[in-house]
Amino acid sequence: MLKFIDGGVCAAKGFMAGAVHCGVRRNRTKLDLGLILAEVQCAAAGVFTRNRVKAAPVVYDMEVIKSGHARAIVGNSGNANACAPEGYEHAVRMARATAAACGIRPEEVLVLSTGVIGQQLNIEAIEAGIPAAYAALSPGGSRDMNQSIMTTDLTEKTCAVEFTLGGKTVKVGGVCKGSGMIHPNMGTMLACVTTDAAISPDMLSMALKAATDLTFNCVSVDGDTSTNDTCLVLASGLAGNAEITAKSAEYDAFLEALTAVMRHLARETARDGEGATKLITSKVTGGGSDADALALAKSVISSSLVKAAMFGADANWGRELCAMGYSGVEFDPQTVGIAFSSGAGTVAVCQNGVSLDFDETAAKKILSEKEITIEITLDGVGSAEAWGCDLTYDYVKINGDYRT
Amino acid sequence: MLKFIDGGVCAAKGFMAGAVHCGVRRNRTKLDLGLILAEVQCAAAGVFTRNRVKAAPVVYDMEVIKSGHARAIVGNSGNANACAPEGYEHAVRMARATAAACGIRPEEVLVLSTGVIGQQLNIEAIEAGIPAAYAALSPGGSRDMNQSIMTTDLTEKTCAVEFTLGGKTVKVGGVCKGSGMIHPNMGTMLACVTTDAAISPDMLSMALKAATDLTFNCVSVDGDTSTNDTCLVLASGLAGNAEITAKSAEYDAFLEALTAVMRHLARETARDGEGATKLITSKVTGGGSDADALALAKSVISSSLVKAAMFGADANWGRELCAMGYSGVEFDPQTVGIAFSSGAGTVAVCQNGVSLDFDETAAKKILSEKEITIEITLDGVGSAEAWGCDLTYDYVKINGDYRT
Repeated sequence: MLKFIDGGVCAAKGFMAGAVHCGVRRNRTKLDLGLILAEVQCAAAGVFTRNRVKAAPVVYDMEVIKSGHARAIVGNSGNANACAPEGYEHAVRMARATAAACGIRPEEVLVLSTGVIGQQLNIEAIEAGIPAAYAALSPGGSRDMNQSIMTTDLTEKTCAVEFTLGGKTVKVGGVCKGSGMIHPNMGTMLACVTTDAAISPDMLSMALKAATDLTFNCVSVDGDTSTNDTCLVLASGLAGNAEITAKSAEYDAFLEALTAVMRHLARETARDGEGATKLITSKVTGGGSDADALALAKSVISSSLVKAAMFGADANWGRELCAMGYSGVEFDPQTVGIAFSSGAGTVAVCQNGVSLDFDETAAKKILSEKEITIEITLDGVGSAEAWGCDLTYDYVKINGDYRT
Repeated sequence: MLKFIDGGVCAAKGFMAGAVHCGVRRNRTKLDLGLILAEVQCAAAGVFTRNRVKAAPVVYDMEVIKSGHARAIVGNSGNANACAPEGYEHAVRMARATAAACGIRPEEVLVLSTGVIGQQLNIEAIEAGIPAAYAALSPGGSRDMNQSIMTTDLTEKTCAVEFTLGGKTVKVGGVCKGSGMIHPNMGTMLACVTTDAAISPDMLSMALKAATDLTFNCVSVDGDTSTNDTCLVLASGLAGNAEITAKSAEYDAFLEALTAVMRHLARETARDGEGATKLITSKVTGGGSDADALALAKSVISSSLVKAAMFGADANWGRELCAMGYSGVEFDPQTVGIAFSSGAGTVAVCQNGVSLDFDETAAKKILSEKEITIEITLDGVGSAEAWGCDLTYDYVKINGDYRT
């Protein structure tokens, strides 16, 4: 039984967070440097972008995470430290400065950066800001930490849950950022998840990978897989449960909680896609396997034509079927059914791969809501959901001149 | 030595074309039914969409083309006859009515449809219109035929060349349509190419596939591979050259001419992408092979973020490198160089995978032109070009409510 609670990335026992404006960003009212610190050594796991071009913090974290342990995460917005001169050296300097401020070892610090690609990081501003971020740490600091890593995000994305494990109350919570360049592939945007569950690094890593495949890897805003996608999870063990060291009922319960938190963050990321006015869920029931169903759902949610039709509340369902057709998945188009649903009702528009005679006025009303589900059925036992958003004038506006 | 000439799809000896408004489209001033007729039996070849969801005319043509011969192509706009009730039967009826009007056999007729997906074709209007289209046939009918298959296209796309083969003058010409749902995969948009070269069906098919890979398969407007992509070529043999039946210098000369015509049509399709204000060429020099170079070039040209930056004339080159990184191609980012060039000059923005200190004002001026080349260099012997366009407000507008 999961219960949603407040507290975000500080909900679990043993974690504090804080953030400051250090000067990487020009806007002095915008937090741009955030810190999460655990009071004890944590089991740690991470998933990272599969983009061949990896930002320096990704390369750095992939090394650090091999130990299976960490105590702090430091992150900045305003600069992705990707394809930037001296990028790796700057990631190391961020970790060292954080370790010095927190009184821990540099190899216990994970680093995140997000923002423009290809510009040199203002490492002096970050080094000067880290002691202030340390001073700002508090158990209520989740929101500041969240804001400090936001770029074009319009909303904070935070979630926490609690559940019981062997009589002990366990909490999992997190924050994330992401709005454009969102098409995670085995990694995610930037996300930080914490838990007080006692769990071994190996099992934590297994759970993170499994949850990622069902959550962040099911999101697309614009088809562009970022150079910086990172999701980190720290487990303090302070809940006092018997350490999870193998697949078990306890592992399953933890995975369910982790997946719930990450699913919420993933959906909120889709809803807050650059320029988006609608959260679109593509729900596929059928296909040869869950993997096939997910590939179909992601192809639909990634289609510019589907997304533009959603913006226009146009029930032009041929675009969904077309996007399924180029997904690379084998299926029989003549078994496909498509319906659109929202708070305003449901309208079936396609059956057996051909058009149904449907009420265009009702369809328009359904598609004018803020949350739309594209319900796709076809032969087969698979099922999956993917999340995205509509393609709007504002997406073009935001990305026509992002750097200025 | 290729010489560009007028005449489009009627430039080669033995071909006439014509078109009428038959009523599939509501706008009575818009031609919506076109016909190409050869005066003799032709060698014929086609390439078709790899989308698993294939429109009825595609399924029909793939059967017909197996014979290696055809004499006529009939096409309509306003309805794609894809995922439509009785779609295959309607494609057959289009072919039969055309055969009856032209006095040829139904199995000598190829069929094209383009427009909205999922709605039943008004086959009665087409059957009634075909005799009028036949009556409209003329050696100067290329432009009408071209217009009759245009949908959101703003410009006609036509090209013809002549060259000499064994002392005989040979011509190759064609027309095509395509503006949205453009991301051809081993097929193309709708394109009709004719030639008076004498060439066997097998060699014609081989040449068509080779030319397609270097032309239509290098175009993306929006990443959506259509259900209807088709490129057909008819060869009348009336030029009087010795029939090309094997790889030879004559085959190479023919392939060069065919590729020149299709390359022109492909580039014009990118230039006329829905909402586009600019033709973008992504030119890659390097990569492990030509195929790798093409995959890199296509990934760049397909990125929504790259396209939006081009619209905004923003030299945000990290987006190009990011798109290369998720292309699936193996390469070393630290060998990558990027420059932008146009009629206003060239600016190098990235070298060895990191930023150069460049003149932003000059870059803005270069990127404000109507034709931009993104010049990418990296280690390796490959090379390729791909063509696309910018992502604009008008793309969203056009596709937000396409059906009304």
